[in-house]
Amino acid sequence: MSRTRVHNFSVSLDGFGTGERQSREAPFGHAGERLHEWMFATRFWKPGGSDGVDDAIAREHEPGIGAEIMGAGKYGYPGWHEDPDWTGWWGPNPPFHTPVFVLTHHPRAPLEMEGGTTFHFVDASPAEALDAAREAADGLDVRIGGGVTTVRDFVAAGLVDHLHVVVVPIVLGRGVRLWYGLEALEQEYAIEATPSPSGVTHLTFSRSSG
Amino acid sequence: MSRTRVHNFSVSLDGFGTGERQSREAPFGHAGERLHEWMFATRFWKPGGSDGVDDAIAREHEPGIGAEIMGAGKYGYPGWHEDPDWTGWWGPNPPFHTPVFVLTHHPRAPLEMEGGTTFHFVDASPAEALDAAREAADGLDVRIGGGVTTVRDFVAAGLVDHLHVVVVPIVLGRGVRLWYGLEALEQEYAIEATPSPSGVTHLTFSRSSG
Repeated sequence: MSRTRVHNFSVSLDGFGTGERQSREAPFGHAGERLHEWMFATRFWKPGGSDGVDDAIAREHEPGIGAEIMGAGKYGYPGWHEDPDWTGWWGPNPPFHTPVFVLTHHPRAPLEMEGGTTFHFVDASPAEALDAAREAADGLDVRIGGGVTTVRDFVAAGLVDHLHVVVVPIVLGRGVRLWYGLEALEQEYAIEATPSPSGVTHLTFSRSSG
Repeated sequence: MSRTRVHNFSVSLDGFGTGERQSREAPFGHAGERLHEWMFATRFWKPGGSDGVDDAIAREHEPGIGAEIMGAGKYGYPGWHEDPDWTGWWGPNPPFHTPVFVLTHHPRAPLEMEGGTTFHFVDASPAEALDAAREAADGLDVRIGGGVTTVRDFVAAGLVDHLHVVVVPIVLGRGVRLWYGLEALEQEYAIEATPSPSGVTHLTFSRSSG
């Protein structure tokens, strides 16, 4: 059974998955890169990086994924839909290598990139987008890639089977809250907490596929 | 040097230290006892309880404490100050066994209980209350006992040397937020995360006393 998975999704102690004042120059707003330093330090991210528990868990991002769904705020800066030349943050060969479904109220034609990534722009509900992504994934799993509100919407809709959240020991104070509207989420998942010597704590929410 | 310490302070994943709709019947509101089940399961709390990492860390609550400061919301239910017979939740022999300074806008005469606990009711700022508690502690440490806003106020004022927060894997959705207003707190402390087989994660914020 194809599962729906979230990986390497970092939040601050106060539950913010991104900061305030996001822009083309500051994709995570005032949070900068602080939520993701743990991942940038791993061998998963760069040659010569660490190969401990952070690396092992970060790598779970890849295997078995046949398609990704992302929100408009992950695909581009605020206002990208008015820029016909915008092709995402990742250059000509994005790191997805699968079909990617971008949720947007401003659909455009599919965009085929190098390396197997094709962006499909869809104005759809989470359930509808998941149906399309599942079909494209051809039996493999679907990753919900973010940003915060997209992950939250899919979790709230009961569509996520595996949710990996990384709690980073910083207090951001402001930004976009992951947990908003998810009261009693713990009743739907088995939850495991794993600390890393880097200081972050990996939380894994998992349940059997529906 | 006398230090100021917070122990066994539990929050949900979304950062709530207590729930909504607190009352005499529900001191933690809709959270019930879910934030504290990890502690109730320990030998620290009851004979025959667990004696693993939760127990070891929970016991740190006691040694070396010469006085406690608590907020009005820990001492009593909303409206207790209009009840002249209210003497706290803990019966005739409260578990403090030291002077306890209750922050309230409605001071009353000190209340001497069995077992060494005396409640002093003070309308004071965090710094003023800490001065009084330090003097009463006679060289020992001062514990900030809660509730949420009291801990937050003392941390925000830079008065806390040791902060033990227990992250419980539940999403409360609403209540009183611990982290509110504490942006960039991580810059003032060394932070350690320790998971427990019970599912909670112990966070220890520490710094040398000022």
